[in-house]
Amino acid sequence: MARRNNSLKEFRLYREKMNRKILASGNLQIQRFFNLDTRAYQSGVLSPKVKELMGLVASLVLRCDDCITYHVIRCVEEGVSDAEFFETFNIGLVVGGSITIPHLRRAVERLEECRRLDHRASKQRQLP
Amino acid sequence: MARRNNSLKEFRLYREKMNRKILASGNLQIQRFFNLDTRAYQSGVLSPKVKELMGLVASLVLRCDDCITYHVIRCVEEGVSDAEFFETFNIGLVVGGSITIPHLRRAVERLEECRRLDHRASKQRQLP
Amino acid sequence: MARRNNSLKEFRLYREKMNRKILASGNLQIQRFFNLDTRAYQSGVLSPKVKELMGLVASLVLRCDDCITYHVIRCVEEGVSDAEFFETFNIGLVVGGSITIPHLRRAVERLEECRRLDHRASKQRQLP
Amino acid sequence: MARRNNSLKEFRLYREKMNRKILASGNLQIQRFFNLDTRAYQSGVLSPKVKELMGLVASLVLRCDDCITYHVIRCVEEGVSDAEFFETFNIGLVVGGSITIPHLRRAVERLEECRRLDHRASKQRQLP
Amino acid sequence: MARRNNSLKEFRLYREKMNRKILASGNLQIQRFFNLDTRAYQSGVLSPKVKELMGLVASLVLRCDDCITYHVIRCVEEGVSDAEFFETFNIGLVVGGSITIPHLRRAVERLEECRRLDHRASKQRQLP
Amino acid sequence: MARRNNSLKEFRLYREKMNRKILASGNLQIQRFFNLDTRAYQSGVLSPKVKELMGLVASLVLRCDDCITYHVIRCVEEGVSDAEFFETFNIGLVVGGSITIPHLRRAVERLEECRRLDHRASKQRQLP
Repeated sequence: MARRNNSLKEFRLYREKMNRKILASGNLQIQRFFNLDTRAYQSGVLSPKVKELMGLVASLVLRCDDCITYHVIRCVEEGVSDAEFFETFNIGLVVGGSITIPHLRRAVERLEECRRLDHRASKQRQLP
Repeated sequence: MARRNNSLKEFRLYREKMNRKILASGNLQIQRFFNLDTRAYQSGVLSPKVKELMGLVASLVLRCDDCITYHVIRCVEEGVSDAEFFETFNIGLVVGGSITIPHLRRAVERLEECRRLDHRASKQRQLP
Repeated sequence: MARRNNSLKEFRLYREKMNRKILASGNLQIQRFFNLDTRAYQSGVLSPKVKELMGLVASLVLRCDDCITYHVIRCVEEGVSDAEFFETFNIGLVVGGSITIPHLRRAVERLEECRRLDHRASKQRQLP
Repeated sequence: MARRNNSLKEFRLYREKMNRKILASGNLQIQRFFNLDTRAYQSGVLSPKVKELMGLVASLVLRCDDCITYHVIRCVEEGVSDAEFFETFNIGLVVGGSITIPHLRRAVERLEECRRLDHRASKQRQLP
Repeated sequence: MARRNNSLKEFRLYREKMNRKILASGNLQIQRFFNLDTRAYQSGVLSPKVKELMGLVASLVLRCDDCITYHVIRCVEEGVSDAEFFETFNIGLVVGGSITIPHLRRAVERLEECRRLDHRASKQRQLP
Repeated sequence: MARRNNSLKEFRLYREKMNRKILASGNLQIQRFFNLDTRAYQSGVLSPKVKELMGLVASLVLRCDDCITYHVIRCVEEGVSDAEFFETFNIGLVVGGSITIPHLRRAVERLEECRRLDHRASKQRQLP
């Protein structure tokens, strides 16, 4: 249950496993909700990058660690720089107050973890 | 602290141990609050089953994992079917939005755990 | 204290007018969300009455006056009795705490307004 | 911006009228909850003044205008100074973030209204 | 349904009047907080437009009408198109759920009001 | 990630390590926010003890375990007695409702942990 202290890999595996079970439950409306959730962040008149930053701010002010982790991962994939991350964190912090700080700490830890994985992956790609 | 990743049994033991300590603190008003909390779900003009489903929806939209676990356990005891659970989850999901999804994943995991325990218990009762 | 001094009729007219505008905006995903919202309370393995009571509790603990008004209206249409309303309010109050009391006051005012309209309507039906 | 344009007097009258109706509903548990709510702020090992300040901070971070109004009135009765009010508002603001600012504006308006009433009352007492 | 029936002009006047009073209270830390709040949305590695969109989403999921009004005004000033507004509203709606819908209705009403004022102003500029 | 089940010592180390990283990020506004957060609880017209009790109530009604832990530690340092703690918990419980109970359990566990450490420390000071 609730898998805190887990690695990014464990986070992904648990998330995918449980999503599969929820979607397999046969409740059509929940399936549709999940579909709307996915599409909300796809390219439209706004870019996926801007939409993921919005998702990150919303997750921070609502103080949901798993949602923050998910959007940090996606923001890294969309090429968000560290300076952009911290300006975004600052907006979440000012809007949501000091009660968001414990989530900010974990967000920064997740960001570091993503950068390390990225770094390792890009190193492997450079091997002859 | 905060015992996530624990089994249903650990959840119950921790909950009972700490409730005992809180009630032993000598604060009469907290004792009365706990009493009101228990009675709110007892049979009245509405059945305990309907009341537990309400408690489950409230816990889901307020995003409290321990409260969700507690009401999932109680709903199973009141005979709530899987289809009823998922219609209830759907209401919580629509009202509370995608920010509830991480809690929904853990709710479904808890429900599976309850069903497994039930299944094992009913198997043991069938032994000669 | 925010008596939101509109009548039930004004509430309905404003709600319908703005919903029409939102749905006319051309954003397909918002239209789908509104559709999911409507369907969540329709008859399934759980009755509309039970689902509306759940919607009412969720609205109370999340402290949204307009959502409470909407579900009070729908609960009255589903035949919820005063005693059932107050057991439901009690669950919302215990789960959500005293911070919900201002919303409870307005919920009770809305319920009275619904009962008066109902009474007047049924009197008119009795005229020869 | 929701100036809730009622006076303090209207606030009190509406609050008392609706509380009477809620307590007259015959739901014993709601009556008990209201009783616990009243007693929580009475003198104990902590003074009513400190308890009302706590109630004010809690109302501010939970962003409930009516609750803020109530605790501002009570804090004035307990002799809280303007400087004490603003240190309390600052804690609420830092913990709860800029999302509390609209409520802070209305809190300050309510405080001014209380001070004016106090001033008028003390002037009347000085008349020969 | 809380039509907060003030105009945009009244909203601005009240906001400015009360901000002045709060800043005049002599509490240095509150002054600094207000300063941080202003600066969070200024140009950095992210543009003011993107930051205002983030502020709008955060305000929508936290369900603060005054904050929504403020960021709608600022987004219009930053040139946000209607299609961009509705993609942003959709993210807020999916993340925050149907409980945000009453705020979405008022957001759309505010947006219309801003567009009307803009239209009138641009017409006046065209006069010979 | 999210370090629940950790000791007070681990809590402190993680908190300090991540705060250092956040402050080292070079985002000046976040640094200023952290500074405002620290100063909000320092002695003013209200004592640090009263301010920490306010921080504790705010953390309880907003249901943030790490924030509760931090303020429990600080309250113990300010000499808050057990009876004062439980009157404070009661206010949080009444305002915030039964949804705060899981956090109350963990608050009481943290308080016990602080008392044990205090006891051990004072025993060591008594050694010849």
